[in-house]
Amino acid sequence: MKHTLLIHCADQVGLIHKITGVIAAHHLNITANNEFVDATDNRFFMRSQLDGDLNKESLMNDLKKILPAVHEVSIKSTKKKNIVLFVTKEDHCLTELMSRFYFNNLNATILAVVGNHEHLAAYTTMFNVPFHYISHENKTKEVYEAEMLACVQQYDVDYIVLAKYMRILSAQFTNHYNNKMINIHHSFLPAFKGANPYRQAYERGVKIIGATAHFVNQELDEGPIIYQEVIPVDHSLSVAQMSAAGKDVEKIVLAKALQFVLDDRVFVYKNKTILL
Amino acid sequence: MKHTLLIHCADQVGLIHKITGVIAAHHLNITANNEFVDATDNRFFMRSQLDGDLNKESLMNDLKKILPAVHEVSIKSTKKKNIVLFVTKEDHCLTELMSRFYFNNLNATILAVVGNHEHLAAYTTMFNVPFHYISHENKTKEVYEAEMLACVQQYDVDYIVLAKYMRILSAQFTNHYNNKMINIHHSFLPAFKGANPYRQAYERGVKIIGATAHFVNQELDEGPIIYQEVIPVDHSLSVAQMSAAGKDVEKIVLAKALQFVLDDRVFVYKNKTILL
Amino acid sequence: MKHTLLIHCADQVGLIHKITGVIAAHHLNITANNEFVDATDNRFFMRSQLDGDLNKESLMNDLKKILPAVHEVSIKSTKKKNIVLFVTKEDHCLTELMSRFYFNNLNATILAVVGNHEHLAAYTTMFNVPFHYISHENKTKEVYEAEMLACVQQYDVDYIVLAKYMRILSAQFTNHYNNKMINIHHSFLPAFKGANPYRQAYERGVKIIGATAHFVNQELDEGPIIYQEVIPVDHSLSVAQMSAAGKDVEKIVLAKALQFVLDDRVFVYKNKTILL
Amino acid sequence: MKHTLLIHCADQVGLIHKITGVIAAHHLNITANNEFVDATDNRFFMRSQLDGDLNKESLMNDLKKILPAVHEVSIKSTKKKNIVLFVTKEDHCLTELMSRFYFNNLNATILAVVGNHEHLAAYTTMFNVPFHYISHENKTKEVYEAEMLACVQQYDVDYIVLAKYMRILSAQFTNHYNNKMINIHHSFLPAFKGANPYRQAYERGVKIIGATAHFVNQELDEGPIIYQEVIPVDHSLSVAQMSAAGKDVEKIVLAKALQFVLDDRVFVYKNKTILL
Repeated sequence: MKHTLLIHCADQVGLIHKITGVIAAHHLNITANNEFVDATDNRFFMRSQLDGDLNKESLMNDLKKILPAVHEVSIKSTKKKNIVLFVTKEDHCLTELMSRFYFNNLNATILAVVGNHEHLAAYTTMFNVPFHYISHENKTKEVYEAEMLACVQQYDVDYIVLAKYMRILSAQFTNHYNNKMINIHHSFLPAFKGANPYRQAYERGVKIIGATAHFVNQELDEGPIIYQEVIPVDHSLSVAQMSAAGKDVEKIVLAKALQFVLDDRVFVYKNKTILL
Repeated sequence: MKHTLLIHCADQVGLIHKITGVIAAHHLNITANNEFVDATDNRFFMRSQLDGDLNKESLMNDLKKILPAVHEVSIKSTKKKNIVLFVTKEDHCLTELMSRFYFNNLNATILAVVGNHEHLAAYTTMFNVPFHYISHENKTKEVYEAEMLACVQQYDVDYIVLAKYMRILSAQFTNHYNNKMINIHHSFLPAFKGANPYRQAYERGVKIIGATAHFVNQELDEGPIIYQEVIPVDHSLSVAQMSAAGKDVEKIVLAKALQFVLDDRVFVYKNKTILL
Repeated sequence: MKHTLLIHCADQVGLIHKITGVIAAHHLNITANNEFVDATDNRFFMRSQLDGDLNKESLMNDLKKILPAVHEVSIKSTKKKNIVLFVTKEDHCLTELMSRFYFNNLNATILAVVGNHEHLAAYTTMFNVPFHYISHENKTKEVYEAEMLACVQQYDVDYIVLAKYMRILSAQFTNHYNNKMINIHHSFLPAFKGANPYRQAYERGVKIIGATAHFVNQELDEGPIIYQEVIPVDHSLSVAQMSAAGKDVEKIVLAKALQFVLDDRVFVYKNKTILL
Repeated sequence: MKHTLLIHCADQVGLIHKITGVIAAHHLNITANNEFVDATDNRFFMRSQLDGDLNKESLMNDLKKILPAVHEVSIKSTKKKNIVLFVTKEDHCLTELMSRFYFNNLNATILAVVGNHEHLAAYTTMFNVPFHYISHENKTKEVYEAEMLACVQQYDVDYIVLAKYMRILSAQFTNHYNNKMINIHHSFLPAFKGANPYRQAYERGVKIIGATAHFVNQELDEGPIIYQEVIPVDHSLSVAQMSAAGKDVEKIVLAKALQFVLDDRVFVYKNKTILL
């Protein structure tokens, strides 16, 4: 049986030796190991892939004994995660993830797609995935988000993926899914936050455009960045052409970031991510 | 004799035909031709490389007759441009440009280097290029900039290159060199304007860093962008390591942008550049 | 009505002037224009986007009068092209193109998908696109290719796209579709031609992998390259991980190359492509 | 005192625990640690940065006791390495490394530059670095290489850097510097081995060009690759323009690869490199 061990705590001399000692005492084989020490903040991060028969509770207890008092430890099984997608009208991020899901290349199960428009319903249901159409129109934000929350809560969800979902969710909603919601923003953040980043990019005359996948927190487009990529552009592209060119980057960035998350490779610390 | 013809005006039906007619009437051969029509704003840009005996005044006159009333036309010879560099303490942009200059790979003559610190004096003078040390300390900005201006004005300068020059120049100074000063900023603008962009990048936890070469105008880091490149980074880089990694991008971006300018390939329109 | 005019001939003084004269005489507006002169070989390439009521025969005749005796001229309407996809087992290039097609983001109609395995049949037919299963097993190459040809010939096909089709087609077949078949090869050609490029890349220890979209000719992986992209890799990737990472590049490179072709932007000259 | 510990051996269960135990017993602090397990070949690689008073012999002995019988262990101090550069006529790699050296940004001392042409002598000696002009003309390869060897052997050299040195060295020479000679080749190897890679790239019509830094072994351009980068090109570039554009990549790739080597981050295994 394979498991992933994630440890985050203050750095200490001898930590790796102690941790690997506990792992050895549990007769587990380390098939891959990555550590990172943030020397500036004296933080220690470690991700170990373990092979063998694992008693989770006992291993956790033994690790707690040798780790600094304040620490985060988790042991993840290789069980597929469950995700729900939020969408609006644009299709490219949905098709990217749905295609991977259909052919078993996404390390997750798409339980449902929720849209505030109906555009993507027919495509979604073709894959036998339920599509929930919840319009935001003629509703207060409170009512709309309560409906969204109720919809999601009927599922056993590990992560919510905002796959070009174009509404801003309030803290009321996002607080339920701290570091559990992944958004794709169509710019190389922190440039061009908020609405119409391609128009902003066009007006500013930049020579690169990009996309940013990040965890959602209460500040718009300010959550911990998981992954970013850019592509070159030039004067010849209109806003619409930039937007079209950017779609390829958006979907790949979202898919890669999601894969990091689903593979339990992402630590969040101080509004940043550490990828091990 | 080779020349570069640059035309910028409102777009009109038949413009290319008319312009190439004038060029043909002057018995000039077009060895390369690039046009761009900004359909959004109805603007026409054209860069033609001409070969033949050229009567500049006569060609200008004939072009004016067929172009829209408001237009910009210029005819550039292949004469090397003259540049002056402004520096502070960092060496990598200076060495990049000086090395190209020394081995005749820069399409320009470096007339002088002006520094507000003495760090780069010995290196510069080794290449028989005068180094002017003008400290900003214990002076009002007015006095300092007047000294800088006097220093530059003793030279016949086409462009001033801010090669990691870390002072902010006031409009008093920059107004003398509108679209004639090129700066390298160590971020992918508009992200991380102003001071310490690598620290800003580190704090924000971005996964890419970059550099931006732009013309200087009166708003800090807001001038028309000429060229940008980025490199990937991750959680493992400290501010100092980001800064070190970024130097390679900074100098290459500055050198490429400068080459575009020196080759008369850059139009400025509406705080943007068109590169033909 | 919009049309695209493509001209390729020997270069001559005054060519642009003459061509734009013909276009003006036909009362057509040039909304975009790109030329390239290959100075080494003295070749002239031009792509003009024309707006207006166009008499194709008359325009062709008038252009022939002013062009050098040997020339290639074509006038393309904006009518969507028809394509047929060849596939084997891998899904990522098929899903990329099918998703674009379904949501009207591919400037083409996918008439059919032909596979030498059945793996992708269910997915294809879900989109109401016919899937033809033609196995290569227990057949001579001649028989197999004759069946493939018969299958394709029942359609009015502009281009055949080899979307990770893993059989080598003989000249018998490819000669029917000269510069009409586009293949995606999973390496940055000319490195790692032929079988198992990711294994070859792994064995050689390269630090980048890539993908190449090219027209198919009679030499395996030797046809004119349309587009290429790469991604960085390192020692930590196994062959399987390289292959997985490469899929994202493969499908994007194929989609972009196909878009260039479908937009009538690609000239083929001397086993190379010129993209205007 | 800082040291770098490099270990390479067959993988074993519990290896990290044992190694970190020895390190702890020597009262050394691990400030950074990277491991890689090549699961395919069952190889273990580890690089640890150690802080503290280190008894090299005793630490080596204690490590040998707990490592598999066959292993490679080395302990590197932070002492600057010594390098000698081989050059021909092109300046850009020399200026890149010399500029870094002059301003203390190269983790090495350039003891001398050896050229088979005199072109770069004046530049080199300006930096007070000896330039040895050893022409290959009118000499057998044997005689020429004996002179080269004698020249290098008067220095205490850690690495020889072929900074666009355009002669092919025989096994007689290279055998003296196994994994101690770093070459920059102006293509993304294994594409375009041998002479004139830019002309080969131009003829093949590739859409990317690149550079490869690698250790030199007895097969031309076949040694272990340390680092590679590419840049996009298109049909508009002549061979000369590709060559000019490629210079920026070549020098940066060489400088980065050299930095990896000088920082003791490179393992060589099976004609590949592992960078930790």
